[in-house]
Amino acid sequence: VNDIVRLAEKLTTLAEPWQPGVVGELNDYLIKLARLEGEFVWHAHAETDELFLCLSGELVIEMQRGDVALSAGDLYVVPKGVRHRPVAKRCAEVLLIEPRGVVNTGDAVTDRTAETDRWI
Amino acid sequence: VNDIVRLAEKLTTLAEPWQPGVVGELNDYLIKLARLEGEFVWHAHAETDELFLCLSGELVIEMQRGDVALSAGDLYVVPKGVRHRPVAKRCAEVLLIEPRGVVNTGDAVTDRTAETDRWI
Repeated sequence: VNDIVRLAEKLTTLAEPWQPGVVGELNDYLIKLARLEGEFVWHAHAETDELFLCLSGELVIEMQRGDVALSAGDLYVVPKGVRHRPVAKRCAEVLLIEPRGVVNTGDAVTDRTAETDRWI
Repeated sequence: VNDIVRLAEKLTTLAEPWQPGVVGELNDYLIKLARLEGEFVWHAHAETDELFLCLSGELVIEMQRGDVALSAGDLYVVPKGVRHRPVAKRCAEVLLIEPRGVVNTGDAVTDRTAETDRWI
Protein backbone atom coordinates (compact mmCIF):
# COMPACT_ATOMS: atom_id res chain seq x y z
CA VAL A 1 0.00 0.00 0.00
CA ASN A 2 1.27 3.48 -0.79
CA ASP A 3 1.77 5.78 2.15
CA ILE A 4 -0.78 8.40 3.03
CA VAL A 5 0.89 11.79 2.57
CA ARG A 6 -0.04 14.21 5.36
CA LEU A 7 0.86 17.48 3.65
CA ALA A 8 1.17 19.54 6.84
CA GLU A 9 3.63 17.05 8.35
CA LYS A 10 5.70 16.79 5.18
CA LEU A 11 5.93 20.57 4.88
CA THR A 12 7.70 20.73 8.24
CA THR A 13 10.54 18.63 6.80
CA LEU A 14 11.44 21.18 4.11
CA ALA A 15 14.66 22.78 5.29
CA GLU A 16 15.39 25.29 2.53
CA PRO A 17 13.08 27.45 0.43
CA TRP A 18 12.93 26.77 -3.32
CA GLN A 19 14.10 23.16 -2.87
CA PRO A 20 11.14 20.97 -3.85
CA GLY A 21 10.78 17.62 -2.15
CA VAL A 22 8.94 14.70 -3.73
CA VAL A 23 6.13 13.18 -1.65
CA GLY A 24 4.41 10.90 -4.13
CA GLU A 25 4.10 9.72 -7.70
CA LEU A 26 1.23 9.42 -10.15
CA ASN A 27 2.26 7.30 -13.11
CA ASP A 28 5.15 9.28 -14.64
CA TYR A 29 4.41 12.42 -12.64
CA LEU A 30 5.86 13.49 -9.32
CA ILE A 31 3.99 15.28 -6.54
CA LYS A 32 6.23 17.77 -4.77
CA LEU A 33 6.08 20.25 -1.92
CA ALA A 34 8.07 23.44 -1.69
CA ARG A 35 8.36 26.49 0.50
CA LEU A 36 8.79 29.74 -1.40
CA GLU A 37 10.31 32.92 0.03
CA GLY A 38 11.17 35.93 -2.09
CA GLU A 39 11.79 35.95 -5.82
CA PHE A 40 12.64 32.95 -7.93
CA VAL A 41 14.32 33.10 -11.35
CA TRP A 42 12.58 33.61 -14.67
CA HIS A 43 12.39 30.29 -16.49
CA ALA A 44 10.24 28.11 -18.73
CA HIS A 45 9.62 24.39 -19.14
CA ALA A 46 9.57 23.73 -22.87
CA GLU A 47 8.08 20.24 -22.61
CA THR A 48 5.43 20.39 -19.91
CA ASP A 49 2.73 22.24 -18.06
CA GLU A 50 3.35 22.79 -14.34
CA LEU A 51 0.68 22.64 -11.63
CA PHE A 52 0.83 24.95 -8.61
CA LEU A 53 -1.55 24.51 -5.69
CA CYS A 54 -1.03 27.17 -3.01
CA LEU A 55 -1.35 25.56 0.43
CA SER A 56 -0.53 28.59 2.58
CA GLY A 57 0.59 32.17 2.20
CA GLU A 58 0.52 34.29 -0.92
CA LEU A 59 2.20 33.58 -4.22
CA VAL A 60 2.39 35.62 -7.40
CA ILE A 61 3.34 33.88 -10.63
CA GLU A 62 4.70 36.59 -12.87
CA MET A 63 4.33 36.01 -16.60
CA GLN A 64 4.82 38.30 -19.57
CA ARG A 65 1.14 37.83 -20.44
CA GLY A 66 0.04 38.90 -16.96
CA ASP A 67 0.55 37.94 -13.35
CA VAL A 68 -1.62 35.61 -11.30
CA ALA A 69 -1.96 35.95 -7.53
CA LEU A 70 -2.62 32.78 -5.55
CA SER A 71 -3.69 32.32 -1.94
CA ALA A 72 -4.30 29.12 0.01
CA GLY A 73 -6.73 26.92 -1.90
CA ASP A 74 -5.95 28.42 -5.31
CA LEU A 75 -4.65 26.28 -8.15
CA TYR A 76 -2.95 27.38 -11.35
CA VAL A 77 -1.37 25.52 -14.24
CA VAL A 78 1.47 27.31 -16.02
CA PRO A 79 1.22 26.23 -19.66
CA LYS A 80 4.25 24.59 -21.18
CA GLY A 81 6.72 26.98 -22.73
CA VAL A 82 5.42 29.98 -20.82
CA ARG A 83 8.18 31.94 -19.11
CA HIS A 84 7.29 32.60 -15.49
CA ARG A 85 8.73 33.73 -12.18
CA PRO A 86 7.18 32.70 -8.85
CA VAL A 87 7.41 35.40 -6.20
CA ALA A 88 6.36 35.10 -2.55
CA LYS A 89 6.75 38.46 -0.86
CA ARG A 90 6.67 36.76 2.51
CA CYS A 91 6.29 32.99 2.47
CA ALA A 92 4.14 30.49 0.60
CA GLU A 93 3.84 26.72 0.71
CA VAL A 94 2.92 24.99 -2.53
CA LEU A 95 2.15 21.58 -3.97
CA LEU A 96 3.63 21.07 -7.43
CA ILE A 97 2.92 18.36 -9.97
CA GLU A 98 5.00 17.79 -13.07
CA PRO A 99 6.57 14.88 -14.94
CA ARG A 100 9.52 13.04 -13.47
CA GLY A 101 12.86 14.69 -14.28
CA VAL A 102 11.72 18.30 -14.59
CA VAL A 103 14.35 20.78 -13.37
CA ASN A 104 12.97 23.43 -11.01
CA THR A 105 14.61 26.28 -12.86
CA GLY A 106 13.69 24.90 -16.29
CA ASP A 107 15.94 26.36 -18.97
CA ALA A 108 17.68 28.69 -16.48
CA VAL A 109 20.54 27.07 -14.58
CA THR A 110 21.39 29.17 -11.54
CA ASP A 111 22.34 28.76 -7.91
CA ARG A 112 18.64 28.14 -7.35
CA THR A 113 18.73 24.98 -9.47
CA ALA A 114 17.83 22.18 -7.07
CA GLU A 115 18.46 18.47 -7.01
CA THR A 116 15.81 16.90 -9.23
CA ASP A 117 13.39 14.31 -7.86
CA ARG A 118 14.62 14.37 -4.25
CA TRP A 119 12.18 12.52 -2.00
CA ILE A 120 11.35 13.83 1.45
CA VAL B 1 -3.59 32.95 -19.59
CA ASN B 2 -5.21 29.98 -17.87
CA ASP B 3 -7.78 30.77 -15.23
CA ILE B 4 -6.90 30.66 -11.57
CA VAL B 5 -8.97 27.88 -10.01
CA ARG B 6 -10.35 28.91 -6.60
CA LEU B 7 -11.12 25.46 -5.21
CA ALA B 8 -13.60 26.63 -2.56
CA GLU B 9 -15.66 28.51 -5.14
CA LYS B 10 -15.64 25.65 -7.62
CA LEU B 11 -16.74 23.17 -4.96
CA THR B 12 -19.93 25.16 -4.46
CA THR B 13 -20.91 24.45 -8.07
CA LEU B 14 -20.98 20.67 -7.62
CA ALA B 15 -24.64 19.75 -7.60
CA GLU B 16 -24.54 15.98 -7.10
CA PRO B 17 -22.19 13.79 -5.07
CA TRP B 18 -19.97 11.33 -6.96
CA GLN B 19 -20.12 13.41 -10.15
CA PRO B 20 -16.60 14.77 -10.69
CA GLY B 21 -16.23 18.11 -12.43
CA VAL B 22 -13.09 19.08 -14.32
CA VAL B 23 -11.45 22.36 -13.23
CA GLY B 24 -8.12 22.25 -15.06
CA GLU B 25 -5.72 20.28 -17.18
CA LEU B 26 -2.05 19.38 -16.88
CA ASN B 27 -0.76 18.03 -20.18
CA ASP B 28 -2.90 14.89 -20.75
CA TYR B 29 -4.21 14.86 -17.18
CA LEU B 30 -7.38 16.38 -15.82
CA ILE B 31 -7.81 18.02 -12.42
CA LYS B 32 -11.24 17.30 -10.98
CA LEU B 33 -13.27 18.11 -7.90
CA ALA B 34 -15.92 15.89 -6.38
CA ARG B 35 -18.15 15.73 -3.34
CA LEU B 36 -18.44 12.28 -1.80
CA GLU B 37 -21.30 11.12 0.40
CA GLY B 38 -21.77 7.53 1.46
CA GLU B 39 -20.38 4.45 -0.27
CA PHE B 40 -19.14 4.33 -3.81
CA VAL B 41 -18.78 1.14 -5.89
CA TRP B 42 -15.82 -1.20 -5.89
CA HIS B 43 -13.79 -0.65 -9.04
CA ALA B 44 -10.29 -0.50 -10.47
CA HIS B 45 -8.51 1.49 -13.15
CA ALA B 46 -6.37 -0.97 -15.09
CA GLU B 47 -4.30 1.65 -16.88
CA THR B 48 -3.58 4.39 -14.37
CA ASP B 49 -2.86 5.51 -10.85
CA GLU B 50 -5.44 7.87 -9.34
CA LEU B 51 -4.60 10.81 -7.04
CA PHE B 52 -6.94 11.75 -4.18
CA LEU B 53 -6.37 14.93 -2.16
CA CYS B 54 -8.93 15.31 0.62
CA LEU B 55 -9.97 18.97 0.90
CA SER B 56 -12.60 18.64 3.63
CA GLY B 57 -14.36 15.98 5.66
CA GLU B 58 -13.29 12.39 6.12
CA LEU B 59 -12.77 9.78 3.43
CA VAL B 60 -11.86 6.11 3.68
CA ILE B 61 -10.48 4.37 0.62
CA GLU B 62 -11.20 0.69 1.14
CA MET B 63 -8.83 -1.74 -0.55
CA GLN B 64 -8.36 -5.47 -0.19
CA ARG B 65 -4.79 -4.81 1.00
CA GLY B 66 -6.00 -2.46 3.75
CA ASP B 67 -7.99 0.74 4.11
CA VAL B 68 -6.60 4.26 4.22
CA ALA B 69 -8.36 7.06 6.11
CA LEU B 70 -7.94 10.59 4.78
CA SER B 71 -8.79 13.93 6.37
CA ALA B 72 -8.38 17.43 4.98
CA GLY B 73 -4.80 17.92 3.78
CA ASP B 74 -4.12 14.21 3.24
CA LEU B 75 -3.10 12.91 -0.16
CA TYR B 76 -3.16 9.33 -1.43
CA VAL B 77 -2.43 7.74 -4.79
CA VAL B 78 -4.33 4.53 -5.54
CA PRO B 79 -1.95 2.43 -7.65
CA LYS B 80 -3.17 1.34 -11.05
CA GLY B 81 -5.07 -1.91 -11.09
CA VAL B 82 -5.83 -1.82 -7.36
CA ARG B 83 -9.50 -2.42 -6.63
CA HIS B 84 -10.83 0.23 -4.27
CA ARG B 85 -14.01 1.72 -2.87
CA PRO B 86 -14.18 5.30 -1.58
CA VAL B 87 -16.48 5.73 1.40
CA ALA B 88 -17.43 8.99 3.12
CA LYS B 89 -19.57 8.25 6.15
CA ARG B 90 -20.73 11.85 6.16
CA CYS B 91 -19.33 14.10 3.45
CA ALA B 92 -15.93 14.71 1.93
CA GLU B 93 -14.65 17.03 -0.77
CA VAL B 94 -11.75 15.80 -2.88
CA LEU B 95 -9.43 16.87 -5.64
CA LEU B 96 -8.70 14.09 -8.13
CA ILE B 97 -6.05 13.91 -10.84
CA GLU B 98 -6.00 11.26 -13.52
CA PRO B 99 -5.47 11.05 -17.28
CA ARG B 100 -8.10 12.41 -19.64
CA GLY B 101 -10.86 9.90 -20.40
CA VAL B 102 -10.80 7.89 -17.16
CA VAL B 103 -14.26 6.66 -16.14
CA ASN B 104 -15.12 7.35 -12.50
CA THR B 105 -16.31 3.80 -11.86
CA GLY B 106 -13.41 2.23 -13.77
CA ASP B 107 -14.29 -1.30 -14.85
CA ALA B 108 -17.64 -1.24 -12.98
CA VAL B 109 -20.44 0.37 -14.97
CA THR B 110 -23.30 1.26 -12.61
CA ASP B 111 -25.82 4.02 -12.03
CA ARG B 112 -22.92 5.85 -10.37
CA THR B 113 -21.02 6.01 -13.66
CA ALA B 114 -20.73 9.72 -14.44
CA GLU B 115 -20.21 11.71 -17.58
CA THR B 116 -16.48 11.66 -18.29
CA ASP B 117 -14.48 14.88 -18.49
CA ARG B 118 -17.34 17.26 -17.69
CA TRP B 119 -15.99 20.75 -16.99
CA ILE B 120 -17.45 22.88 -14.22
